Amino acid sequence: MTFRSHMDIALEEAQAAARRGEVPVGAVLVSPGGEVIAQAGNRTRELSDPTAHAEVQVIRAGCSMLGSERLPEHDLYVTLEPCPMCAAAIGFARIRRLYYGASDPKSGGVAQGPRVFSHPQCHHVPEIYDGIGGDAASGLLRDFFAARR
Amino acid sequence: MTFRSHMDIALEEAQAAARRGEVPVGAVLVSPGGEVIAQAGNRTRELSDPTAHAEVQVIRAGCSMLGSERLPEHDLYVTLEPCPMCAAAIGFARIRRLYYGASDPKSGGVAQGPRVFSHPQCHHVPEIYDGIGGDAASGLLRDFFAARR
Repeated sequence: MTFRSHMDIALEEAQAAARRGEVPVGAVLVSPGGEVIAQAGNRTRELSDPTAHAEVQVIRAGCSMLGSERLPEHDLYVTLEPCPMCAAAIGFARIRRLYYGASDPKSGGVAQGPRVFSHPQCHHVPEIYDGIGGDAASGLLRDFFAARR
Repeated sequence: MTFRSHMDIALEEAQAAARRGEVPVGAVLVSPGGEVIAQAGNRTRELSDPTAHAEVQVIRAGCSMLGSERLPEHDLYVTLEPCPMCAAAIGFARIRRLYYGASDPKSGGVAQGPRVFSHPQCHHVPEIYDGIGGDAASGLLRDFFAARR
């Protein structure tokens, strides 16, 4: 599988989240061998859990599977720039590479605002690749919020 | 109960975390009526969950109890300055007042580094009171890390 198809799975998770009335963001966790070991879309409303962002869910699932609080050599694909909560969790989990789609000027915490990875308080910085599938991801978000207005 | 005794409970949770081999941080969630509705210490190792910081645990527990992803008018007491993950979660949960003990130059995300509450990407900023029981909290951390060296 290529990074493009991993992001396709993340986009499908984002679409499924939108159908559940959740903010459409999806994430995929990939093992060192290239296998998808967890995939999720936002479920903050369904689970009554403000931490149930897609990224946190796949990190928690992967760590639970491995019996470890760290996921070295694992890569994470997410349709939207992570918020500061998710960025910090990605650092704690020692994710190797972070691929994300659309940038998020309103709530992002990687390339703007808190820039979580750009301070010495962050003990692990992943390699970061942005803009992958970004148009599809931001289109989903735009449609979702337009429909709610 | 006064805020001092709420922080005492958080300190007891931090001490219990240290006895479990977890970084000694404790948190308490207080309802609008002043009742402790959740208390927790770090359990990242025990649960193999890098997001299982004390603050995230009490927020998840409180939200689950209320069936809501928000905890308006609730206050959170934590022995250490929250990291950026927890600070962002506190914002998402709409916590009213954040009381914390020791400042955390190494990993903190409130008064230093990412300063999560100081950017427009943070949609809710709690009232923040720092330094409450800070000496006891930092003493716990110092002893814990000294014993591991």
